[in-house]
Amino acid sequence: MVKKVVIIGGGAAGVDVLELLLRGQGAAEEMEITLLKKEEEGFFSTCGLPFALQGMYSIKDLSLFEPEFYRAKGIDFRTETEVTSINLEEGYVRVDSIEEIRYDELVIATGSKPFIPPLEGTNLEGVYTLSGREDGEKVEAAMSANPRNALVIGGGIAGLQTAVAFSKRGIYTTVVEMFPYLLPSILDADMASIVQKWLYKEISFILGKPVSAIKGEQRVKSVIVGEEEIPADIVLMSAGMRPSVDIAREAGIEVGESGGIVTDRALRVKKGKLYLDNVYALGDCVEVIDAVTYRPRLSQLASTALIQARVVANNIRGISSSYEPCLSPTVATISGLQIGSVGVITEVARRYGIKIKVGKAIKYTKARFFPGRKLIIAKLLFEAYTEKLIGAQIISGETVAERINELTLAIRAGITARDIWMRERCFDPSLTMVEDVIVDAALKAVGS
Amino acid sequence: MVKKVVIIGGGAAGVDVLELLLRGQGAAEEMEITLLKKEEEGFFSTCGLPFALQGMYSIKDLSLFEPEFYRAKGIDFRTETEVTSINLEEGYVRVDSIEEIRYDELVIATGSKPFIPPLEGTNLEGVYTLSGREDGEKVEAAMSANPRNALVIGGGIAGLQTAVAFSKRGIYTTVVEMFPYLLPSILDADMASIVQKWLYKEISFILGKPVSAIKGEQRVKSVIVGEEEIPADIVLMSAGMRPSVDIAREAGIEVGESGGIVTDRALRVKKGKLYLDNVYALGDCVEVIDAVTYRPRLSQLASTALIQARVVANNIRGISSSYEPCLSPTVATISGLQIGSVGVITEVARRYGIKIKVGKAIKYTKARFFPGRKLIIAKLLFEAYTEKLIGAQIISGETVAERINELTLAIRAGITARDIWMRERCFDPSLTMVEDVIVDAALKAVGS
Repeated sequence: MVKKVVIIGGGAAGVDVLELLLRGQGAAEEMEITLLKKEEEGFFSTCGLPFALQGMYSIKDLSLFEPEFYRAKGIDFRTETEVTSINLEEGYVRVDSIEEIRYDELVIATGSKPFIPPLEGTNLEGVYTLSGREDGEKVEAAMSANPRNALVIGGGIAGLQTAVAFSKRGIYTTVVEMFPYLLPSILDADMASIVQKWLYKEISFILGKPVSAIKGEQRVKSVIVGEEEIPADIVLMSAGMRPSVDIAREAGIEVGESGGIVTDRALRVKKGKLYLDNVYALGDCVEVIDAVTYRPRLSQLASTALIQARVVANNIRGISSSYEPCLSPTVATISGLQIGSVGVITEVARRYGIKIKVGKAIKYTKARFFPGRKLIIAKLLFEAYTEKLIGAQIISGETVAERINELTLAIRAGITARDIWMRERCFDPSLTMVEDVIVDAALKAVGS
Repeated sequence: MVKKVVIIGGGAAGVDVLELLLRGQGAAEEMEITLLKKEEEGFFSTCGLPFALQGMYSIKDLSLFEPEFYRAKGIDFRTETEVTSINLEEGYVRVDSIEEIRYDELVIATGSKPFIPPLEGTNLEGVYTLSGREDGEKVEAAMSANPRNALVIGGGIAGLQTAVAFSKRGIYTTVVEMFPYLLPSILDADMASIVQKWLYKEISFILGKPVSAIKGEQRVKSVIVGEEEIPADIVLMSAGMRPSVDIAREAGIEVGESGGIVTDRALRVKKGKLYLDNVYALGDCVEVIDAVTYRPRLSQLASTALIQARVVANNIRGISSSYEPCLSPTVATISGLQIGSVGVITEVARRYGIKIKVGKAIKYTKARFFPGRKLIIAKLLFEAYTEKLIGAQIISGETVAERINELTLAIRAGITARDIWMRERCFDPSLTMVEDVIVDAALKAVGS
């Protein structure tokens, strides 16, 4: 029997599931797959946008697959198509309010949309968000129109990366962050201050104050932050992404305290007291369980979506797979500085009642005598009693992503501070220090 | 009571122990420490030598500590001093055949010496080894004397790195390796062939043939390899290092099948049926237990010595610590190419009766659309039945060391191929691919 699979959403999550189903042996014969997405392109890599705006490549390069690519493989790949409702009882989705598409297995990958703070003036011309090709093209056009001042609302990764793009074009750029420091979801204040110092020549910062209004007539002219009125020809709203859960909620699917769709470990959605056998959800629209706090949270990363897609695709193919609690390892390059974080930060540990021991160290990435070495700063958080690693923050000019991957594994494996101290690491003076920064940080946390 | 600690050897192992004892709280008052070494400098980083010969810095830069540095801290740091025997019964070492130095705790860190193949001509002028400052200076002087041809015996890391140094100076350079491929102790033949191709413009290779003689009168003129006579003005013998165990063996301390001193997990040496309470050995002179085969082997790395030094220093300070079986993660840069290996290679798995599943993949280090990405090749070995990772080989232009550290931890943590496939990795297009080469390799090994 041919199984009818319907995927709602063509962002990373939806396309990953599609891709994995296609790679499965014999899948093409066993399944009839429909993917429904609002946007007009096949797949667009949104996380690549800030670098395109920085001029590293063109926005077009981020359209990684055309719809035809999948259509040629027999997929009913529909763009500019909106799912207006889901009927779980009868097993179909309604498309563009008129067509009904029956499913045997449904995948909800509806993604997220930019959070628009409830402010006066968010609909003025010159106010942008950055979530997809169209947004990117609008911002690029605005950057090319010789603006003098740009203001970014939100000092997270995308906000800072885009602020760097503005600054590189010679636009005077201000970032406003409500928290008293940058990157508050992935860094502690002391680590964030390093990032701020790194950027101080390029970007002005207003921290610890919310934006209270965006001013202008038709076009934006300024932004009010506290008592100050800041001139702005471009405003980018980068204040986080909210899960897109409306059609799921309307169908009776449970949405959790984080705002994301609740699932079980097979990533099946919940309705009433039961998890449904044939309806999965993944990606930016779902809630995950944090692997340190064991409480619900969001993890709106392409990397999270990919792992979830493997679980969903396997389950649809009949290979039972379970999704693990999530550590959400995160990295970014911001103006050449690499920043990484995994597990909990100090504030999250405090909020969830976890006492910690902390170690922080600064060293080089290579031997002291080796040319081209870079500084590296690591902060490690350990659960106070067991001394198990539960969080890590790293900043350097190189090797940050791979170190975050190692520490992600270390948290999962229950590695303690003394384990880190007693653990082999490779050494070559051209590539590492014989005593690594991670080891120093671990030892500082526990004394000896 | 002040404890009298005597350390024999001032290479990485001996100096690491000294350094760690000094860092311990109150250690200076509780201990009287003597370090005895043959060489004249405080500490010299031998693994940095090939890069000095490549012109990246001067040999002098590798003298990281002068003896005065430690003497000022109250250490009896003796250079140009040879221990001629150990008396375990009465607890002293004899120095330069005349002086007796009593110890409460003895640390044997006698290191290793270059293996000199039993050949005609190894004592000719122009034939060198590379194990310390003096060797380095001799080779540097020889390189400056306008030689036309250099020949390196041994295609291991140090041999290849030094061959690159010769080649950079315009010396026609040949590497002779007895095995049919390069780096046979850390790479499989297919991975080694990538390194060979990378170097083919710089270095000539003769593989699978032993050197049978070194020819010349007083000075070296040529080297006989198989039927061929190869002209050579410089010959570097880089055929591995042998543990220096003579004084230990003469004192009745057991030496194992690998040629290294046998120890227990506290790194205490064995005499007769017993491990001695107050005599430790570590570094290039000891035998370790391999963490995959559980059989004895050598692990002559500065990084291995450092971990062992932590165990020894802790135990001397009264903080019980145990040394773990060894994975010997290894990295090197050879002419800009980064090469890494950890755990077993295919040949070792075969030799020790371990059936394997193998996956190999080639990808980029960053997103496909990101400028500056490099190729990366990974080969992973899994135990066939449990599908646990037991070995990894990686070659790329970047990120190899940090990946080897991650995979070292993965082997120790008992991670399986499917774990790797289901495990979160961080993603930013400027730093990683969303589907990493490691993940592809793991999946290829197990099919799905």
